[in-house]
Amino acid sequence: MTDFTDSLKPRHDGTATLQAERGRSSVDVDELARHLLSRDGFLQRQKKVLAVLSRVKLFKKDQQMNLSRPDRYHLALARAKALQRIVRKHGWDHDDYKMCEYLVDEMSPFHLHMTMFVTTVREQGSEAQKRHWMPKILDYDIIGCYAQTELGHGSNVRGLETTATWDPAQKEFEIHSPYLTASKWWNGAMGRTATHAIVVAQLLLPRSDNDKAYDNYGPQTFIVQIRDKKTHQPLHGIVVGDIGPKYGYAGMDNGYMLFDHFRVPKSAMLSRYAEVSDATGAFTRLGHPAVVYGSLTFVRGQIIMHARLVLARAVTVVVRYSAIRRQFRDRDSTSEQDDEMKVLDYPTVQIRILPLLATTFALHYTGEMMYSLYHKSRETIEKGDFGPLAELHSASSGLKSLCTMLAADGIETCRRAMGGHGFGGGSGLVGINADYLSKPTVEGDNWMITQQVAAYLIKKMTEAVKDPSAPASDPTASLFQFYLANRDHRIPQSPVQGSATDDQAIVDVFQWRAADLSYRAYHARVVEKKPWTRLMIQLHNLSRAYSEQILVTNFCNSFSSSSSTLSAPTPAVLRTCFRLYALTTLDASASSFTLTNAVAPHAVPVLQDAILDLMAELRPHAVKLVDAWSIPDWLLDSALGRSDGRVYEDLFDRAHRRNPLNGVTFNVDWRSEEIVLGSGDGGRGILAKL
Amino acid sequence: MTDFTDSLKPRHDGTATLQAERGRSSVDVDELARHLLSRDGFLQRQKKVLAVLSRVKLFKKDQQMNLSRPDRYHLALARAKALQRIVRKHGWDHDDYKMCEYLVDEMSPFHLHMTMFVTTVREQGSEAQKRHWMPKILDYDIIGCYAQTELGHGSNVRGLETTATWDPAQKEFEIHSPYLTASKWWNGAMGRTATHAIVVAQLLLPRSDNDKAYDNYGPQTFIVQIRDKKTHQPLHGIVVGDIGPKYGYAGMDNGYMLFDHFRVPKSAMLSRYAEVSDATGAFTRLGHPAVVYGSLTFVRGQIIMHARLVLARAVTVVVRYSAIRRQFRDRDSTSEQDDEMKVLDYPTVQIRILPLLATTFALHYTGEMMYSLYHKSRETIEKGDFGPLAELHSASSGLKSLCTMLAADGIETCRRAMGGHGFGGGSGLVGINADYLSKPTVEGDNWMITQQVAAYLIKKMTEAVKDPSAPASDPTASLFQFYLANRDHRIPQSPVQGSATDDQAIVDVFQWRAADLSYRAYHARVVEKKPWTRLMIQLHNLSRAYSEQILVTNFCNSFSSSSSTLSAPTPAVLRTCFRLYALTTLDASASSFTLTNAVAPHAVPVLQDAILDLMAELRPHAVKLVDAWSIPDWLLDSALGRSDGRVYEDLFDRAHRRNPLNGVTFNVDWRSEEIVLGSGDGGRGILAKL
Repeated sequence: MTDFTDSLKPRHDGTATLQAERGRSSVDVDELARHLLSRDGFLQRQKKVLAVLSRVKLFKKDQQMNLSRPDRYHLALARAKALQRIVRKHGWDHDDYKMCEYLVDEMSPFHLHMTMFVTTVREQGSEAQKRHWMPKILDYDIIGCYAQTELGHGSNVRGLETTATWDPAQKEFEIHSPYLTASKWWNGAMGRTATHAIVVAQLLLPRSDNDKAYDNYGPQTFIVQIRDKKTHQPLHGIVVGDIGPKYGYAGMDNGYMLFDHFRVPKSAMLSRYAEVSDATGAFTRLGHPAVVYGSLTFVRGQIIMHARLVLARAVTVVVRYSAIRRQFRDRDSTSEQDDEMKVLDYPTVQIRILPLLATTFALHYTGEMMYSLYHKSRETIEKGDFGPLAELHSASSGLKSLCTMLAADGIETCRRAMGGHGFGGGSGLVGINADYLSKPTVEGDNWMITQQVAAYLIKKMTEAVKDPSAPASDPTASLFQFYLANRDHRIPQSPVQGSATDDQAIVDVFQWRAADLSYRAYHARVVEKKPWTRLMIQLHNLSRAYSEQILVTNFCNSFSSSSSTLSAPTPAVLRTCFRLYALTTLDASASSFTLTNAVAPHAVPVLQDAILDLMAELRPHAVKLVDAWSIPDWLLDSALGRSDGRVYEDLFDRAHRRNPLNGVTFNVDWRSEEIVLGSGDGGRGILAKL
Repeated sequence: MTDFTDSLKPRHDGTATLQAERGRSSVDVDELARHLLSRDGFLQRQKKVLAVLSRVKLFKKDQQMNLSRPDRYHLALARAKALQRIVRKHGWDHDDYKMCEYLVDEMSPFHLHMTMFVTTVREQGSEAQKRHWMPKILDYDIIGCYAQTELGHGSNVRGLETTATWDPAQKEFEIHSPYLTASKWWNGAMGRTATHAIVVAQLLLPRSDNDKAYDNYGPQTFIVQIRDKKTHQPLHGIVVGDIGPKYGYAGMDNGYMLFDHFRVPKSAMLSRYAEVSDATGAFTRLGHPAVVYGSLTFVRGQIIMHARLVLARAVTVVVRYSAIRRQFRDRDSTSEQDDEMKVLDYPTVQIRILPLLATTFALHYTGEMMYSLYHKSRETIEKGDFGPLAELHSASSGLKSLCTMLAADGIETCRRAMGGHGFGGGSGLVGINADYLSKPTVEGDNWMITQQVAAYLIKKMTEAVKDPSAPASDPTASLFQFYLANRDHRIPQSPVQGSATDDQAIVDVFQWRAADLSYRAYHARVVEKKPWTRLMIQLHNLSRAYSEQILVTNFCNSFSSSSSTLSAPTPAVLRTCFRLYALTTLDASASSFTLTNAVAPHAVPVLQDAILDLMAELRPHAVKLVDAWSIPDWLLDSALGRSDGRVYEDLFDRAHRRNPLNGVTFNVDWRSEEIVLGSGDGGRGILAKL
C-alpha cells in the first residue's frame, strides 16, 4: 500500500537528535556495558542468541497485543516448543536457554519445568527418585509444574488444605481436596501444559493407637502424574484447568487443580529428607533441608539483577523518547523564534526519570555483591554454613521487597513521564508493566516478608544491647555497636553543604537511620513488649530503611573497587548517579532522617537545589548511560525507545501498516444490527464470543 | 458439566463473613448512599438503567478479557449502536445515557460524538452552522470526532502542524499535513467510526501585500467530512485509521489522520467567534470565547466526581475481599487453635486501603463544592463573570492533577493489597486500572497543568504583599493576608496531642503550609527573579500542597452542613475518615509541614499511633462504608468484591466453567509442530496472525 504519507517526514529528525545527544557525552558505552554485563558472558550470549531468534517469525512481538488471550497461550506454547528444537539444534547450554527466555520476554508454559519442578526433584528427591525422573525431565518427555499455592492460601504454607493420607493397607497415599479453597491455584504451566506436578500437601498418618484418627506431619512434596500421556486429558479423580485471564503473563497457563481421593504410590513422596515407613507407617526425617535455603540468596540476587534490567528497559525508552520529544518554548524565552524544548530538559521530567536511571545502577551493585558473596561462600553453603552470606541471606527479604517495588513503580513512572504516547502500545511498556506487576507479590509478598527482616534486626539489636563489646560478626553487628556507643552524643549530619556533597556522610546518615529505627523497634518489642501486630507498619518501614542503607552502602563501596578501572568521565558520572539516588531517596523520606537524628533539619531544604544540580550534571550523559544497558531494539519492541531515534516513523508504521483493525470496514449506522459493513452478520458474530 | 467439585464449599463461608461485618456497624447504608449519591437522581437512575442493561447479553462483561483487541472494538461498536436503540426505545434522556456509559464501563466509539464533537459545534458554530449540523448530530446520522492532538504535539496547541490555508480564488480552505508529525493522533472514534471530524488547524491567510506569503492566525476549528456516507471509506486526500492497541480503551478506535491538500468549503470553519471575509480574505474575531472556559470548572468537577467513584470501586473490592481472606494466625497468639486472621485486621493492610477509603469521601466533598458553586454561578458565568467560581476555576488544574493521581495510584495500591488474587482477572480491576491510567495524562498532563496553579498563586501572593489590607476577594486572598500578618510570630501547631485530635488545627496546618510555599514561590520568582524552569519542581509541589489544602478544608467544612443531618454513628465515622485522610497525608509529607513552620517537629512522631487508632475506629465500619458507594455487582464484575461474599465460588466458576482456553487440548510434545492436539495444524495457525 502506497499513499501520500510515504514521502512525509517528521518535523525534527530523531536520528540526528540522538546522534547529537551521544556526541555530547564522552562516556565510553562499550566499556561501561562490559563493566555492567560481563558476568557469565552476558553480552556475547545476548548477541549470539539474538542473531538466531530475531530471524524466526514465531518470535515476532509486534502483533502480540492484537491477539486474544487463548491465542496468547497458543503462541507461547508454540514458542516454548520451538525453543526446545532451536536449543538442541545449536547445542546451546542452560544459560543460553535462559537468555532465550529473557529475549523472548514472555513467561513460557515450559518455564516452571526447568525451574521449580526440576529444582524440587533434584533437591528433595531420593537418589532412586532422581534416577527415575531426571532423564525424563531433562528430555522434556514429561512437562512439570509446581502445585503449592491454593485458592485459599498463598504465603502461609502451613495453612494448605490439600491432604495426602497414608493408607497402610494399600501402601498408597490418597491425595484429596476437602474444600473448594483447597484447589491448587495460580500454579504456572498447570492449566493446559503440564503432564506432572509437584503437589504440596499435608501429610496425614494414622495414629497407631486409633485407626480412625490421623496426625498431621505438615506439608510434604509429592510428584504426581496429572494428565494422560496420549490424550493429555486429566487422570480420573483430578480436575485441572487454566484459571483465566489476568493482568499479565498472557502466555502462561496458570492453573487450578483439585483431587477426589486420588491415589498415588508410596514412591510419589519425595524422600530425601522425609520418609514414611512401609512396615510401620512411621514418619522419619532424614536430616534437615537447610541446604535448600542456600539458593534463596542466589534467587533473591537474581530478582534484583532482573529488576535492574527491567527498570533499565523502561528508563531506556523514556530517556531516548524524552530527548526527542519537544514541547513548549522556555517560559522565560524572549525570542519568538526559539525552538520548543526537548522535554528531557524540563526538571519536572528529569526528577521523574533521572533518579530511576540512577536506581538501575544502585540495584546493580547490590545484586553484584549478592552474587559475589554467594559464589565465594558456595562451598561452605553446601555444608549448611552460610559464612559471610548469613546476614545477607536474612536481609534478602527486605531487598526483594524494596527492589521489586522500585522497579514496578519505576516502570509506571517512566510511562507517565511520556505523556500521551506513554499510554500507547508503541511505548513497548504495556507488556512488561503488566507482567512485572506480579513481582511485588510473588516470591514473598512485599509487605509481608519485610517482617522477617525486622525480626532479624530486633534480634541483632537485642544481642548488641546485651553485649555491646562482643566481637562483631558482620557489618550490622558493627553498625549497631557503633550506634549504641554514640547515640547519646550524636551530631546530626549535613550531607550537602554549599556546593559540596560528602559521600561518606551520605552513607553515614543512611546507616544511622537504619540503626536508630532498629533500636526503636527493639525497644518497642523487647523492652515495652508491644504486640507485634501493632508494630507491623513500623517494622515494614524499618526493613525499607535498612534495605535502602544496603543499596547506598554497596553503591558507594563500588567506587573503591571495580569502577575505578573505568575511563573518565564514567566514574564521575556514576558518582553523580550515586548521589542522585541517595539524595532523592533521602529527600523522599526526609522526616525519617531528621527524626532519627541522622540528618540535621537545616540540611533538608538544601537538597532540592543539590538534586537539581546533580540532574543537570547527569543530563548530557543520560542517553549514553541507557545505551550501556545494551537492551536490544528487538527486546524493547518500542517505537518510543528505538536506539536510532525513529520514534514517529515507527509509531506511524505500526498504526498505518501493521494494525489488523484497519483492514475491516464497519457499519456505524445505529439503525442497523450489522457490524462489519456488507457482512450482513446482524451482529451475531460477537455475541457468540460472550 | 458436572464433577466432584460441584459439591465442594470454601472452608469459610464468605457470605456469613460479610453479614457479620455488616452486623458490627450501625451505619445506615441507605441514608449514607442518599447523602452521597442523590444529585441528579443518581441512585434511582442507576437502578432503572441497570435493570435494563444487565438483561442484555451484549453487555455481559466476563468474557471481555478473552477477546482480541480487534474484537474489543467490534464489541464496543455493537454496544454503542445497541445503546442508541435502547435509549430511544425507553425514551431515556441524556443523563440516562451517561448512566449507561458508566455502567457499561467501556469507552464507546460514540463517546466523542456527544461530548467534544457536539460541544464544539454548539459553542463555536454560527447560528447557521448549528441549524445545519445539530439535527444530523442529535440523530446520529453523522458520527463525529475531535481531531486536535497530533503525533508531534499534544498539550501545546499553538505548536500544531496541520494547516488550513485560505484560497481566495476558490473561496475554499486547503487542509494539509506538511510533516508526518502533523498527523492527527489519539483522537477517539476517528480510527474506524467517525464520518466527520472537528479538525484543529493553523489558519493561514495570504498577505495582501504578497500573494506568496501567508500570515498564521493560530489554531482554528473546522468541521470536515472524512468518510464516504455509503462506503465508509476515507475521502480522497485523507489517510485515516486506528492507531493500534494501547494500555486501556480497547473498545475505542483512537485514530490518526493526515490530509493531502484536502479542500473544504468556507462554511467548514466554525465561525461564531472568528470569520474570514469572502470578499477581502481578512480575518475578524467576533468577541472572545471566554464563556467556553466556564464549563471547564464543571468538567474538572466531573473528573473529581468520576475519580471518587472509580477509586470507590477499587476500595469496595479490596475492603470486601480483605474481610473474607484469612492468612496466618496472630504472631503473639499462644493458642494453637486460633483461627487465621482476616487480612483486613492487619495494620499493614489497613494502612494501604483505609486511607484510600477516606480519600473517596475527601474527593466527594470537593467535587460537590465545585458542582454547587458552578450551579450557583451559572447565570453570571453566561456573561463571562465567574463570580465566586473564579478562584476555583484557576485552582481546578491542581485539583485535576492531584485527584486523578490519587485515584490512579490508589487503584494499584488496592490491587497489590490483595496479594495473588489481586493479579488475577477475578479482581475486576484489570480493566479500570488500564483505562484509568490515561487520566493523569489526558485533559492536561498532571505535571504540566500544576504550573498554571502556581502561576496563579504567585500572582495572588504578589497582590497580597503589595496591599496586605485590601479587601480579600476570595478565601486564598484572605489566607495570604492572614499568613503575611502572622508569619513573623507563627507558632507551629500540633494537630494531635495525647489522644485528642484538633480538627481546626489540621485545617490550619494545611492552609499554613500552602500559604508558606506560595510565599516561597513568590519570593523565588518575583523577588529573586529565578528562571521559571529552575522552579518547576517546587511549583509542582506547591500546587499539590494547595490542592491538598482544598480537599482538607472542604472535607472539614462538610461537618457543619449536610452531614449533620445524618444519623449516628455516621457523622462520627465520616469525621474519622477526615482525620485519617488528613493525618496520613500530613505524615507522607511531614518534612514539608515542619519546614514551613506549619507543624511542630515533635508533633510528627505521634502521628503513627494516632493513625493506628483512627484505623481501628474505622475498621468495623469499612464494609458498610463501601456498601454506601452503591457500586452494583454487575459493574464491579469482580469475584473478590462481590457484595454477597462468594469470592471463592466465583473465582472457581470463572476458571472452571467460563474459560474458553479450557475447551482446547494441546500437544505439548516439543518434537511435534502441531499445537492443538489432533489438529495436525503444524503450528501454521498462529503464524498467520503474527
